[in-house]
Amino acid sequence: QSQSKMGWWVNLYSWIAFSMLGVIVGLFAFIVDVLTEQLTLWKWQITETVFNVSIMLGWITFIVFSLLFGGTAAILTVFMGPGAASGGTPELMGYLNGINYPQFIGLNTLFVKVVGLGLAVSSGLCIGKEGPLAHIGAILGHCTLYLPLPMMDYFRNDADKREIAAAGAAAGVAAAFGSPIGGSLFAYEISRPSTFWSFGLTWKIFFCSSISTFVLNILSSYKRGEDVRIMNAGLIKFGQYDQNPYKLHDLPFFMIIGVFGGLLGAMFININFRVAQYRKKYLTDNWKKVHEVIILVALTATVIYFAPMMLYNDCLQEEEGNIEARFIRYACDKGKYNPLATFLFNPESTVIKALLSKNAQFDYAQLTLFFVIWYCFTVLSYGSSVPAGLFLPGIMIGCALGRITGHFIENRIIGDIRPSTYAIIGSASILAGYTRLSFSLAVIMLETTENVGLFLPIISALFVSFGIGRLFNRSLYVESLKAKNIPFLIEEVPQCNKDLTACKLMTSPVQSFTIQPTVSQIIETIQSNDFNGFPIVGEDRRLVGLISRQHLVVLLNKQCWRVKTNDTPISTEGRDSLGSRSDKSSNILVNSGDKRSVNDQSPHDKGKKPRIVLDENDIQSTGELPQDQDSPNQLATKKQKANKKYQQLDEETQQESSFGSDQSYQYDFYSLTWRDFNMNFHSHVPSLSEKALLCCEQNYDKVIDLRAFMIEKPFNVQSNYSIQQVVELFRQMNLRHLPVVSELDNKLVGIITRQDIFAYMTM
Amino acid sequence: QSQSKMGWWVNLYSWIAFSMLGVIVGLFAFIVDVLTEQLTLWKWQITETVFNVSIMLGWITFIVFSLLFGGTAAILTVFMGPGAASGGTPELMGYLNGINYPQFIGLNTLFVKVVGLGLAVSSGLCIGKEGPLAHIGAILGHCTLYLPLPMMDYFRNDADKREIAAAGAAAGVAAAFGSPIGGSLFAYEISRPSTFWSFGLTWKIFFCSSISTFVLNILSSYKRGEDVRIMNAGLIKFGQYDQNPYKLHDLPFFMIIGVFGGLLGAMFININFRVAQYRKKYLTDNWKKVHEVIILVALTATVIYFAPMMLYNDCLQEEEGNIEARFIRYACDKGKYNPLATFLFNPESTVIKALLSKNAQFDYAQLTLFFVIWYCFTVLSYGSSVPAGLFLPGIMIGCALGRITGHFIENRIIGDIRPSTYAIIGSASILAGYTRLSFSLAVIMLETTENVGLFLPIISALFVSFGIGRLFNRSLYVESLKAKNIPFLIEEVPQCNKDLTACKLMTSPVQSFTIQPTVSQIIETIQSNDFNGFPIVGEDRRLVGLISRQHLVVLLNKQCWRVKTNDTPISTEGRDSLGSRSDKSSNILVNSGDKRSVNDQSPHDKGKKPRIVLDENDIQSTGELPQDQDSPNQLATKKQKANKKYQQLDEETQQESSFGSDQSYQYDFYSLTWRDFNMNFHSHVPSLSEKALLCCEQNYDKVIDLRAFMIEKPFNVQSNYSIQQVVELFRQMNLRHLPVVSELDNKLVGIITRQDIFAYMTM
Repeated sequence: QSQSKMGWWVNLYSWIAFSMLGVIVGLFAFIVDVLTEQLTLWKWQITETVFNVSIMLGWITFIVFSLLFGGTAAILTVFMGPGAASGGTPELMGYLNGINYPQFIGLNTLFVKVVGLGLAVSSGLCIGKEGPLAHIGAILGHCTLYLPLPMMDYFRNDADKREIAAAGAAAGVAAAFGSPIGGSLFAYEISRPSTFWSFGLTWKIFFCSSISTFVLNILSSYKRGEDVRIMNAGLIKFGQYDQNPYKLHDLPFFMIIGVFGGLLGAMFININFRVAQYRKKYLTDNWKKVHEVIILVALTATVIYFAPMMLYNDCLQEEEGNIEARFIRYACDKGKYNPLATFLFNPESTVIKALLSKNAQFDYAQLTLFFVIWYCFTVLSYGSSVPAGLFLPGIMIGCALGRITGHFIENRIIGDIRPSTYAIIGSASILAGYTRLSFSLAVIMLETTENVGLFLPIISALFVSFGIGRLFNRSLYVESLKAKNIPFLIEEVPQCNKDLTACKLMTSPVQSFTIQPTVSQIIETIQSNDFNGFPIVGEDRRLVGLISRQHLVVLLNKQCWRVKTNDTPISTEGRDSLGSRSDKSSNILVNSGDKRSVNDQSPHDKGKKPRIVLDENDIQSTGELPQDQDSPNQLATKKQKANKKYQQLDEETQQESSFGSDQSYQYDFYSLTWRDFNMNFHSHVPSLSEKALLCCEQNYDKVIDLRAFMIEKPFNVQSNYSIQQVVELFRQMNLRHLPVVSELDNKLVGIITRQDIFAYMTM
Repeated sequence: QSQSKMGWWVNLYSWIAFSMLGVIVGLFAFIVDVLTEQLTLWKWQITETVFNVSIMLGWITFIVFSLLFGGTAAILTVFMGPGAASGGTPELMGYLNGINYPQFIGLNTLFVKVVGLGLAVSSGLCIGKEGPLAHIGAILGHCTLYLPLPMMDYFRNDADKREIAAAGAAAGVAAAFGSPIGGSLFAYEISRPSTFWSFGLTWKIFFCSSISTFVLNILSSYKRGEDVRIMNAGLIKFGQYDQNPYKLHDLPFFMIIGVFGGLLGAMFININFRVAQYRKKYLTDNWKKVHEVIILVALTATVIYFAPMMLYNDCLQEEEGNIEARFIRYACDKGKYNPLATFLFNPESTVIKALLSKNAQFDYAQLTLFFVIWYCFTVLSYGSSVPAGLFLPGIMIGCALGRITGHFIENRIIGDIRPSTYAIIGSASILAGYTRLSFSLAVIMLETTENVGLFLPIISALFVSFGIGRLFNRSLYVESLKAKNIPFLIEEVPQCNKDLTACKLMTSPVQSFTIQPTVSQIIETIQSNDFNGFPIVGEDRRLVGLISRQHLVVLLNKQCWRVKTNDTPISTEGRDSLGSRSDKSSNILVNSGDKRSVNDQSPHDKGKKPRIVLDENDIQSTGELPQDQDSPNQLATKKQKANKKYQQLDEETQQESSFGSDQSYQYDFYSLTWRDFNMNFHSHVPSLSEKALLCCEQNYDKVIDLRAFMIEKPFNVQSNYSIQQVVELFRQMNLRHLPVVSELDNKLVGIITRQDIFAYMTM
């Protein structure tokens, strides 16, 4: 009964962590929003003042500010947090897939991502601030687990880190678009081929997303000085919509916009990929990367500054209630405004509202120019060394595209349409064209437009755009994963490699340990290679367990060795002795199984004997394990969870069993608790300290009993199993190391890691 | 290259099947809607005419019609389609979990569900027509695969049947609520612990749901004679909403409604469960079940008929534009109407709109009576022998509850509230209280109210209701699953059984075959037990494959045997000979693996040699398998897919390889194609025909080579593996049979089936 009570507490703390994360992400979204808004406002206010004096002076002011912001952002990114560059979604996909990408998680990355994002967006680059909130959320999720709260250290393992990072990403997107369901689905979609996503997690993520939306909303209302309205609203909102925004005859045109969106998206991916290749080839030095950003910023600022004058120097009479945006006079007389300048110089969210407003009037030249500027500069800017998002540019480009198409249709084909609806369809198409998000994008668009009636047209355009784009290439994220060579596990083995078997994939011979290796053996092994997982074998090289490098290092650092008490071959006890002779029939196996189940039952009464001194286990070598000697096993079960490296993610009750009792494991010199095996913040494998190494050298002949710390009976395959079965096991059971045994007698013959599989998978 | 082209075609046909399903489900939703509406209309019209003559005569007319409809529905259900009773959601959960519940899928069930549902709803029982659309959709999905279309037989296996059934259920719910995302999430949520749900499937299901919503919408518009508006709209719509439906001070009250909802829901489940037990105990005979329905209908009709008169005989002046419902005069003077009668005698969807209308005025007595009538009769009616849904009653009860609370708060606490918002929150709370749906219910409510602003209050009330309800019992569906004893696999093994190992679970000794058993052995085995899967063992009882009863029966029926050509022990070739001596090192294994991968490659050129005569394989017994003898294996791979019984669901390209070429497998008397192994409509295992049995008897000493038809290298566990690992494998790899091998030498010792595990799982 105390077990289930413990589980209840763990569950409660997990909910607390997720709720706190929601609050924190909402807060950070607000900070990003305020930062961006404030910086942009300063820039525009000063520029406008100077502009009224002289156009060239205005340009200089404008470009100085832009370069200042952009340069700072680039320097921060390049020298302080290289992991913060770009959107972070591909790396996030890799992370959720089980890869620890260097620099992806970290406080410096967080700082750069927040501050750099604000600076980069204010510098006038054609990028958005929405996508990176997913990355920010993921880091914040990570950080939440390291807050000084009771029991948080319980969740400091790779499995829980992934879960809370997914929740953070969801909360970030939810806050960005005011879309809790959309955010949750986004997290689901980007963690696609991985199945750590359980149903309980969905609930938590959804809750976390709702809270972050809510908090952002409260803060925004407060800032605007309104009384707190608790409608959900994100950083982008499309504003109010009329209720009957389209007719049946619009549908084919929506499909055509979908085709455009798909083509433009595919082209975007292609160009961006090539630019990235050039970048990789030529920008080998940190300062070159900064220079690239500076050139981009200068170019963008200049084009935006002069475009209204050079190409479209028209002035319109200011009208009341036409569009929500602030009118920009630019070079016009008083009382008039320049429409393109109004577009280019207003904050993006206002522009989107204007583009989606059904009253607003635009003409082709203005829209086309706007479209071209944003498309070209976005494709160039995304991937440079500043934090950058792609959602907002997609919406901008798409709105312009949709409006252009809408105007054309209105003038030439059918008068009875609403160009504002076309703008929404356009943005959905463009976004689907390059992100290739499906479900989640549809819901995000739905929640952002706040109009369920638009759902079917959005879906149909999205489908078309997705399908057309898919004919040419994979999504921007997947291409990016490929370019970065991230060993991402997909669901399906390519046809040409279907015939491979496990023994073709595996690394062999494999570095393995016996149950009680000597200190010198361990040190030699972990220093001679960089494998992270080592199978443990019993008699005759038969697989009995798996231990991670991290565990071994902890054991050595903590000096958990003891004197080797006898030289007889140590039997593997409990788990291997049941039927180690060849005369076993199924009957005997059942019996020995009974014995084991009695042994294993003892976690229930572990509270009674909190300390087991392993030095006494000379008796173990008799082969007949006394009933109360099973505690090492049970401790192993504990460790298994806390450090499980994604082995069996959902064994929640195992987790429970290790909770709340500070049972320790006493050795010669030190008593260990499960906290010693907690992952550090970056999930780096610790290295051996100098002192520990020295100490080890004096104890080369001592042995460490690994049984207490290994993953017992790890999932394994026989050597003739197919690659598809191996991939299935890796994916579904969230493995990192899969020992391969001979099909005949279960002797260990090799080990398969993620990299081994990845070599045969093409994305 | 032709492989991937085939895959493309398979994919295309799969999309076609899903789209067609969308159309069909939309059509059926429309039929159900029209049927219900028409029957109800007739009943009311005739009753009203008679009522004006005499109240008692009116009552007789009313009750005669109700009994006619209700009785017909019950007789249809009991005698023609017992599987159509109730909502069908628990059985659907079981079905998606991998269980073939008898009578759940079938044309008779479909007919009864559609017609019986229309009749039952029109009979005046307090039930809804929305939930059963999920069941109808699932059956329609099944039927779609059996339409006479090209390539549909390709999908006639258990795996694809599950997928399309899930899509059908989603489409049904989507049509019912005009909620494509909600429908898809509903299907996701009820297939929760199962992971056949891949990402590609989500897309297809979503598409299918959108189409069904769309089709229903078009048809409804057409019927109403409006020009076709393509807004999405389902059978229930809550109508238009104002944009600022609540303030911050409303939130605590919403939570309180959540508490009420949770309590009422838990009570509902409890009472319903007890009623179901009584039903099981006393209604043992078919006619008794019909009588129960008749009594219920008579009771409901009488109470509804007299309630306004006995308890609430008030008359109000008819007003224009107050509520949308048709005024029911009842016993009032001309120009006046009876409010409770207006509630009880109008179609449900109108009543919901009235309850949600912000203009409408109600008083406590009226609302309370309405609430009590619906709550009591719903709890009694759900589970009786007619098709019945629970969504609509939940909404009705919830609306009344919300309105009552709202009025109380408005009068006593804060004047500034909108009772209509409280009604929505109330219905969400009640629904969450007994269905315990989370994500999907939130989205369904969101899409039905068409107001994203209501999302946060709905979520918070839902959370509270879910949490409160969870303190008392599991969801109505889960309780129902328990009561029906469906072996449903959940994610987590209960703590008390965590220590069991595979050898404790397994059935042992196990019935197995050698690679080439004689006909007499097969007949003896399959007639002496009712196992559905048989391991195939090679030398020394080492596991090499798994074959299903269905395959064996087909092989016997088709007389696929041949003369036993030699008496030397047949080696297991390819898959077992690689390293059958004990001297193997990992190096040898790699080599033999190479050989295998060459063998297995041959599916690529199978088109060249379409017929292999197995009689020639004397040469196989040399142990050295010639390269072109591998076709049996490759055919096995084919069969594996078409009949895989949920082994490896996503091996799509394997699927591709068997597509398009009618390659056959020639035996003494018959040539087999993969079509012979297709599942029949009900996935029943065929029995041996008399003729085949006779024929078998004359060939008792012939042998059947099973290698071509078995699942090669099935997933298996060693006997000391824990129950949690076994459950993981079952769930994640969608198994039905899991052979257990000895940990020492992979000799077969037992087999685990779903039932074996279920014995140790409590829900």
